[in-house]
Amino acid sequence: MDVVNLRAELENVTDYWSPRVLGRVNDQYIKVAKLKGEFVWHKHDDEDELFYIVRGSLVIQYEDGNVQLGEGDFHIVPRGKMHNPVADEECWIALIEPVSTKHTGDVVSDRTKSIEEQTAAS
Amino acid sequence: MDVVNLRAELENVTDYWSPRVLGRVNDQYIKVAKLKGEFVWHKHDDEDELFYIVRGSLVIQYEDGNVQLGEGDFHIVPRGKMHNPVADEECWIALIEPVSTKHTGDVVSDRTKSIEEQTAAS
Repeated sequence: MDVVNLRAELENVTDYWSPRVLGRVNDQYIKVAKLKGEFVWHKHDDEDELFYIVRGSLVIQYEDGNVQLGEGDFHIVPRGKMHNPVADEECWIALIEPVSTKHTGDVVSDRTKSIEEQTAAS
Repeated sequence: MDVVNLRAELENVTDYWSPRVLGRVNDQYIKVAKLKGEFVWHKHDDEDELFYIVRGSLVIQYEDGNVQLGEGDFHIVPRGKMHNPVADEECWIALIEPVSTKHTGDVVSDRTKSIEEQTAAS
């Protein structure tokens, strides 16, 4: 019977680009992360990914243009679409994506976090 | 490439207990609703349901106790568990639940909204 506060959880996050799993609804994980700077271009062939902005702002770069997100906005990155999140300033987000989703999709980089790292107690 | 703001969408909701579908991530709908008063005891046999509080506060009554939610909190109602949302004052929420979920689960009441009603343009 957990109650989880997004901002309170995010206050405890110390690393950028390191999603933390906070819950599971059906076959989707709810995660939070702090972002700053540029991530890495990637895609998830079979999985949509929802970004919700808890604090700050975020640009999702696409090959055909950018999407600008502010606090309280959400945006769904469609499966199969190359994208790259960029946060000029620190941005706090929640994510919804399938339990099967790999962090950097079809790309492996030094940014890639395994699901074991994302679910580990801090 | 939609950007959706939860508060802006909720400002346009006029009816209580009438979820509106704002997006779909994989097999889950993202919905918003305004709540006030008491809903109806029900369960969803095979589906978890996530409540996220955008504004106000909400009590989820269970047969074995209550869960109290405030702004920025989320809580996942487990599948199969009888529950009843109660909002003493107007409360704005987002919901995540499978596209297959029925509004009042295994109960049909005058509160029940079909998915056609939930996805209709306002």
